[in-house]
Amino acid sequence: MAREQGSARKQRRRRARGGNVAAGHAIEQMPWHQPELSFPPQELLNEEQLDIIHIASLKILKEIGMEFMSADARDRLRKAGADVNEETHMVRFDPSLVEELIKTAPSTFTLHARNPQKNLKIGGRYIVNGCVSSPPNVSCMDKGRRPGNIEDFQNLLRLSQYFNIIHLIGGYPVEPLDRPVSTRHLYNTKDMLTLTDKAISVYCIWGQRVSDTIEMARIGRGISNEQLEREPSCFSVINTNSPLKFDEMMLNGLIEMSSRNQVICVTPFTLAGAMAPITLAGALAQQNAEALAGLVMTQIVRPGAPFVYGGFTSNVDMKSGAPAFGTPEYMKTSIIGGQLARRYKVPYRTSGVNAANTVDAQAAYESVFSLWGATMGGGNIIKHAAGWMEGGLVASYEKLVLDVDLLQMVSEFLKPVIVDDSTLGFESIVEAGVGGHFFGTTHTQERYRNAFYAPLISDWRNYESWEEAGSPRAWQKANQIWKKALKDYQEPPIDLAITEELDRHIAAIEETGGIGTDF
Amino acid sequence: MAREQGSARKQRRRRARGGNVAAGHAIEQMPWHQPELSFPPQELLNEEQLDIIHIASLKILKEIGMEFMSADARDRLRKAGADVNEETHMVRFDPSLVEELIKTAPSTFTLHARNPQKNLKIGGRYIVNGCVSSPPNVSCMDKGRRPGNIEDFQNLLRLSQYFNIIHLIGGYPVEPLDRPVSTRHLYNTKDMLTLTDKAISVYCIWGQRVSDTIEMARIGRGISNEQLEREPSCFSVINTNSPLKFDEMMLNGLIEMSSRNQVICVTPFTLAGAMAPITLAGALAQQNAEALAGLVMTQIVRPGAPFVYGGFTSNVDMKSGAPAFGTPEYMKTSIIGGQLARRYKVPYRTSGVNAANTVDAQAAYESVFSLWGATMGGGNIIKHAAGWMEGGLVASYEKLVLDVDLLQMVSEFLKPVIVDDSTLGFESIVEAGVGGHFFGTTHTQERYRNAFYAPLISDWRNYESWEEAGSPRAWQKANQIWKKALKDYQEPPIDLAITEELDRHIAAIEETGGIGTDF
Repeated sequence: MAREQGSARKQRRRRARGGNVAAGHAIEQMPWHQPELSFPPQELLNEEQLDIIHIASLKILKEIGMEFMSADARDRLRKAGADVNEETHMVRFDPSLVEELIKTAPSTFTLHARNPQKNLKIGGRYIVNGCVSSPPNVSCMDKGRRPGNIEDFQNLLRLSQYFNIIHLIGGYPVEPLDRPVSTRHLYNTKDMLTLTDKAISVYCIWGQRVSDTIEMARIGRGISNEQLEREPSCFSVINTNSPLKFDEMMLNGLIEMSSRNQVICVTPFTLAGAMAPITLAGALAQQNAEALAGLVMTQIVRPGAPFVYGGFTSNVDMKSGAPAFGTPEYMKTSIIGGQLARRYKVPYRTSGVNAANTVDAQAAYESVFSLWGATMGGGNIIKHAAGWMEGGLVASYEKLVLDVDLLQMVSEFLKPVIVDDSTLGFESIVEAGVGGHFFGTTHTQERYRNAFYAPLISDWRNYESWEEAGSPRAWQKANQIWKKALKDYQEPPIDLAITEELDRHIAAIEETGGIGTDF
Repeated sequence: MAREQGSARKQRRRRARGGNVAAGHAIEQMPWHQPELSFPPQELLNEEQLDIIHIASLKILKEIGMEFMSADARDRLRKAGADVNEETHMVRFDPSLVEELIKTAPSTFTLHARNPQKNLKIGGRYIVNGCVSSPPNVSCMDKGRRPGNIEDFQNLLRLSQYFNIIHLIGGYPVEPLDRPVSTRHLYNTKDMLTLTDKAISVYCIWGQRVSDTIEMARIGRGISNEQLEREPSCFSVINTNSPLKFDEMMLNGLIEMSSRNQVICVTPFTLAGAMAPITLAGALAQQNAEALAGLVMTQIVRPGAPFVYGGFTSNVDMKSGAPAFGTPEYMKTSIIGGQLARRYKVPYRTSGVNAANTVDAQAAYESVFSLWGATMGGGNIIKHAAGWMEGGLVASYEKLVLDVDLLQMVSEFLKPVIVDDSTLGFESIVEAGVGGHFFGTTHTQERYRNAFYAPLISDWRNYESWEEAGSPRAWQKANQIWKKALKDYQEPPIDLAITEELDRHIAAIEETGGIGTDF
């Protein structure tokens, strides 16, 4: 039996293979925990190359500058020493000013959740996985693709709560288009605070919307304004209008968030070839310039305000202009983005993304390539890590479950291998004997229940059993699992006084007609 | 537009997305090249932990030993100083003897192909991808799953020749069961040598079969025996009968191969929980013991004979005994296996494997997780890298194409990012202007054709266009591509004198009745 796999075949004949989905039983999932990178993040550029990118981005900020469309922001920037042109709204920065102002940003901090057991350590070697956020559409295999709506919005929140490997409600898992825009953020936030007890996000679209939401986060935690400002409790991502532009709404939101010491993540939208140079070094230099400008802005608003460096640089299909994710280029920029964030000693946000239209092999390989880049690159917050498809145009129920499995696998991979007498198991080799097997050894019997990661999706039955079972595909298993999860989902406890106060807050704003919607 | 993806949506509206399969045109693939790891391989264990595994494996070889079922092998081992028990066939090794004997193995060497342009650098940071080998079954989406046969064997060889990212014919891509066993190796080898011009493999099943095949490799290259012995031209994998057993056929094959300076790769078949301890440290210690025993054997036969350290340790599903691949455990052992191989300064073989029954998301994510471990672990030879499914029970046409795409993506990822004035593209940022776009810039126009990796499979059309096209899945695109590749395939040139000599060699052996088949 020298033939490759010969022994495997024999092993298989000896034992029937079974599936690993236990219908009716609780879904076996990992307990709540924050994964930690157990090794140094990977580096693709050397120190000198990293310096060149850094210097190039400072040159962009000095010689071209960046457009700031908010008068309030420009006023603050001018006072801080930036060169502001009130006619063009362009702001130029001296390199030494940038270097000086970014020093106050914290390298690690805690993002507080309504449930303190779900507070998140941001930075260092810690990893946070965020659910999909912001798609206008939703899909499942039963009802197909449809516009976002309240029911799906709430269901996806329930799934994000149910699965422990999702740490952060990174935004609206789908846009509930059937909610009136003027008060949508209020009801959405109430759902985030009541259907889940995890840390939540705010959209930096106009100041009042932001302050309404921060207030609800405060009420949700039942704390004072002072405590809220000591304990960041909201997370918000700002995508620049690349190239080199911050619009008014996002700047006012940033100012509101940072002034109250809430978390701002600036993620330049630098798709190489479209909104940034086609070469990765150039796209990264521009990404870095825009991220640094955002970092400077937060620190001017409030020195020490928590900031996360966002990297999203990917490429587009140059034949069609379609954005692509999970590509080799995306992996490289994910890793180099991490090097840049660590250079500035701030946490790093990256993403688990793909551009597939269905939960097929493409969706899976693009997602794992994204996770490869994000993980090896030392990503601290992995946004869109569960449920994202079509480059962000759809939130998929089945993809969410598939991603939960992928994220759990990455988390298991990151657990250190224990090397000691017990795990070396010399006695078990003696006990199994030459040519014997290990199933029956004491060493195995003591450990077999939890020795290995138990996948949600992978079907390891032999072909014949699998075929007899109807040849189920991965997405079909995922479909069963989300239904089971929704059935098993339990609303996290919350004080009645808190929900009443949330309702009063919403009613008071509704009386005023909600926020303006003329944007 | 602070909303995540807002800018992407706008970009998409501006430009229609198109597919990337150009029916009728040649398949766009990477040119022949050997990828190189552009960064140091990852390390999961520290030096001290690695030492503990090393010492544990030497303890296994000293205190338990390994069964060698060949009298010839035992004789050589005794003469080299090992402690041989002729009754039990157990051979024990003093640690210092092992340390001494393994010193002669080369850390790098060249594996020669019939076409010298396809010679392979083995070791260092070089990567070799091998096609699927040895499944008893074959499948495609048109005809389903069926036993291996000559037609599919030849077609899979043609595809392995066609795709440049497949470097090594790692064995029979499927077993052609319709060839008589006694002469199967002769016709299979002739096919490997004529349908492809890449480096080939030999199965170490019985000495004569091995010598027949080596002779054909020599004829194929048109060289003398002396040159063949200077220039390794055959590769062979030996899976031990784990735990701790080498059978007679494989040992006689190893002796034949190593004595003629051909490449032996010993890959212990240490599935944790079945043929090795359930704990990864224990399974790795046993893997290492078995691999070192193989390494010692090759160096006793011929000091300096090329040897490759094989790592294949994975886990089994403890509920069913089914082997699993592409698991978190597999990723860890892949990476640590590389650390061990480098400790002994020999090249490292790992695999691109999965246990899926169909080309769905599972097949893709398990494969990319495997490649993640193999790549980051510094694998020099990645066996089964294209076409393997069901844990090795089937070779799939569609999976082969999918894997070619994955391998090309990994290869693209490994290409260093160039950081210089040209790639920083400062002028293009000036040219695009604030809030502008880069499609029209000179910098983009000069580069857009080859700026990014062009995928074979990924469908980046928008949902509507994709749906109009019939909602094609990844496997359907793969199905089109292998058909196109077979149509475009061209037999590599070979001298008529060589094919005639191969035929004479086969006829001469056939006259004697071929090899014995009583195994």
